[in-house]
Amino acid sequence: MGPHVQRQPEPSEGDRLPRPSPETQQGIGPAKNQVEVGMANSDLEFLFHPKSIAIVGTPSDPSANQGAGVFLDALLEFDYKGHIYPVNPKISEIRGLRAYPDLMSLPQTPDHVICCIPASLVPQLIKDCASRGVKAMAMYTAGFSEAGEEGRKLEQELVRLAYQGGIRLIGPNCMGIYCPSTCLSYNPLLSREAGSVGLLCQSGGVSLGLSIMANFAGIYFSKVISYGNAADLNESDFMEYLAQDNETKLIGAYIEGVRDGQRFIETLTRAAKVKPVAILKGGRTKAGAKATASHTGSLAGDEEKWSAVCRQAGAVQVYSSEEMVDFFEICLHMKPLKGQRVGIIAWGGGPSVLATDDCESAGLVVPAFSAALCQEMRSFMFEPGSSVSNPVDSPVLANPSLLSRAIKTVADSREVDVLIMRLPFAVARPPFDLEVTVATLEAIIETSKSIDAAVAVVQPHGDTPESSGQFLGVQQRCAEANLSLFSTTRRAAQAIGRFAQSISYLEH
Amino acid sequence: MGPHVQRQPEPSEGDRLPRPSPETQQGIGPAKNQVEVGMANSDLEFLFHPKSIAIVGTPSDPSANQGAGVFLDALLEFDYKGHIYPVNPKISEIRGLRAYPDLMSLPQTPDHVICCIPASLVPQLIKDCASRGVKAMAMYTAGFSEAGEEGRKLEQELVRLAYQGGIRLIGPNCMGIYCPSTCLSYNPLLSREAGSVGLLCQSGGVSLGLSIMANFAGIYFSKVISYGNAADLNESDFMEYLAQDNETKLIGAYIEGVRDGQRFIETLTRAAKVKPVAILKGGRTKAGAKATASHTGSLAGDEEKWSAVCRQAGAVQVYSSEEMVDFFEICLHMKPLKGQRVGIIAWGGGPSVLATDDCESAGLVVPAFSAALCQEMRSFMFEPGSSVSNPVDSPVLANPSLLSRAIKTVADSREVDVLIMRLPFAVARPPFDLEVTVATLEAIIETSKSIDAAVAVVQPHGDTPESSGQFLGVQQRCAEANLSLFSTTRRAAQAIGRFAQSISYLEH
Repeated sequence: MGPHVQRQPEPSEGDRLPRPSPETQQGIGPAKNQVEVGMANSDLEFLFHPKSIAIVGTPSDPSANQGAGVFLDALLEFDYKGHIYPVNPKISEIRGLRAYPDLMSLPQTPDHVICCIPASLVPQLIKDCASRGVKAMAMYTAGFSEAGEEGRKLEQELVRLAYQGGIRLIGPNCMGIYCPSTCLSYNPLLSREAGSVGLLCQSGGVSLGLSIMANFAGIYFSKVISYGNAADLNESDFMEYLAQDNETKLIGAYIEGVRDGQRFIETLTRAAKVKPVAILKGGRTKAGAKATASHTGSLAGDEEKWSAVCRQAGAVQVYSSEEMVDFFEICLHMKPLKGQRVGIIAWGGGPSVLATDDCESAGLVVPAFSAALCQEMRSFMFEPGSSVSNPVDSPVLANPSLLSRAIKTVADSREVDVLIMRLPFAVARPPFDLEVTVATLEAIIETSKSIDAAVAVVQPHGDTPESSGQFLGVQQRCAEANLSLFSTTRRAAQAIGRFAQSISYLEH
Repeated sequence: MGPHVQRQPEPSEGDRLPRPSPETQQGIGPAKNQVEVGMANSDLEFLFHPKSIAIVGTPSDPSANQGAGVFLDALLEFDYKGHIYPVNPKISEIRGLRAYPDLMSLPQTPDHVICCIPASLVPQLIKDCASRGVKAMAMYTAGFSEAGEEGRKLEQELVRLAYQGGIRLIGPNCMGIYCPSTCLSYNPLLSREAGSVGLLCQSGGVSLGLSIMANFAGIYFSKVISYGNAADLNESDFMEYLAQDNETKLIGAYIEGVRDGQRFIETLTRAAKVKPVAILKGGRTKAGAKATASHTGSLAGDEEKWSAVCRQAGAVQVYSSEEMVDFFEICLHMKPLKGQRVGIIAWGGGPSVLATDDCESAGLVVPAFSAALCQEMRSFMFEPGSSVSNPVDSPVLANPSLLSRAIKTVADSREVDVLIMRLPFAVARPPFDLEVTVATLEAIIETSKSIDAAVAVVQPHGDTPESSGQFLGVQQRCAEANLSLFSTTRRAAQAIGRFAQSISYLEH
């Protein structure tokens, strides 16, 4: 695994890539004058390193932390190191920063503009940006192609003006960029910690929800781009960029519709050869597709076609934000799988049966153990009601040293490639016995270091503040020990199935 | 809805139903000498009202709260009002109760025996029970048909002895009965509060996990029966009983294999005509079916056949304990649906799109609103980025009175049968704004009282102790207001789909 395209030198005004004319930017048919397929988008690097940012349309009320107010709040909260220029003609100062009446009056040209003014005022802003030499603008402003024919025309006009002025647009109708390593954020709730997951997201709401859910699971991001209507920069541009970005090790994408199908297929295929890629498609169903039109003005395409594209390109499909986070979790923590054979060690016969169904439904195999392995297991798992074959279930596994022996015996047999370890029920619900949890978990962690098989841990999520606290503790230990943790065996099985599929696509 | 069979008078020794000979009790073929199909199993009522219980094989160590130790602990914790007789020849007293060396030395005949002694000693115990006139025994003891040919023979022998002695067996290899209204429990973690859900469960682990998960969601049980290998009393007996039980309003079943297919289909069909019934099938897959053999000695049957049986009988299928709890939740709290048309009010365009996909994938319909309804919605939802059709999404919905107006406008149009209300993102993650949550939720609760459409609320579960606490608060308010609550739109959509399906089977 590694970047498959060379990093380009930092771009200057002069060497920017050719871009399509605005007419080719709506609809999903092939663009006539598209960016040359296969060119690296390392030239988008500049988007993530602005030395100054103007927020045009900063609300007057400094306490407003909803809507457009969130951008200033987020940059201050993230301790952004560059200059911040609030722009609002009605105020002279906000949260300790001098405010400016318009873009033209700024003391320097900002590297990046966040646009929060009403749609009708945007054309003039783009003209101002052009005359000041602004290179990039993220547009929170909505009311364009998602709002009907008039908005679609206005959006075309913006793209035309931006193209003429040498400005790259993110959006409109989006949140823009979250890049913790350079203290950029569009929301103060996001983590300041940087990680290795890249996410491109056509919805600001999904990007925020998914990112925070991931943050809580101890998963952090290199770059998240909320790109809305994709009037100029689109899914292929960001996919191409993340595929070659050294800070990004795996990629997730929430996409409602693509601007240029052929280019996207080629970009996705190249990306999935170098990094695991998961796609969450919004608008899979008829009514869902209709909803995307009024959300981001996208034409969603049918579900079967999408599944075929992902399969051929080597990307895996997920169907919810939770499944996307599970995919990140397993790519970050699980060692590469040599096959799809799962060994299950659960507590309780019924949960073992259901875990087996979960695995087989996810395309995995739960093989019966060989006679020799059963024999060896039986030598220390003697209690009535024990299952010494796969799935393994025995009351003696409450003893950590026998649990370790069971794990090691199964793993050393080489009869499975990955173990799903479901923590015993009693530890997951209060009144819980924390000592049992700790002893069990530490036995798993310690034993997992000396085996070849990959390990996933399952512990129910917890419905009370106490059990949530316990879950967080388990989560932290698993993350430190590089073990994947899931709240149900079904989620574990689905993630393992996708992980196995994803790594089979990578060029080794 | 109501019981479809008359309650029978309390049974005496003489009028017990005829029962099959032990030879017909293993395997899944039709029994030759089965209980008459269609006879009420109200005669099982006595199982839930024992005036005295002997625990044969109570562990000597009073601190043991695992394995067999849990039964005494549970009865004491539940403040069981009858006599408890611990039986163990090595002790004279345990936890303040006098212990007896064997069943024969008890001062009275217990109504119910819990059997925890090794398998090889059970035949003598059954003979002792017969000579004392014991009517019922729940067998925790394992090592019978799930353990191979020898165990299968021993199990047949037990059934023969029990039949001769006039004793009904629950199990072996099971936890027995949880009936909070009569202070019976097999585990101290279960709630003492009684409710209206009946659950029959072939796995003790699944029954415990599922019941506690339900308890945390504010769902309580009339009767839970963990019945293991079903050597004597089986899934059809308990289904028949719960169908006519006045304390039970809906039924869940975890089943690995059935003892008599034809009788089960007929029983299930009758049950689903009078109460909603959900089936969680263990061993749906090939490897899962193999696992059921070593768990409860069941032959699992293939998945397609099972789905056809459920569909024809009018029971809904669920695929995890979580989905079972969701089904209970919606049956208990949602008003009957007049159709399958869903209106979605979410916060955020992407989440709205995904919610729409979730609904359509669950077989529901998300209709576009009529021009007249869109017009009316637009009159107060004017912000750019708003969607005034279905799914509805607008920043103005942060205002509780406009939210109420949106709910009422959509509901009064009669264009949808049920509303899914996804609480705004910000309230679901800390640092959350509790005032916003409360105001939003109260607006939903208040408005829902004056509309015909059913309402489901969605709020993310919470990953931290703080957000868990908040979730619990929301849960409690929803339960008080009789609104169904789910942690994701997918879970809400699946539950609504199953609820609509289930109520269509009921005889009105």
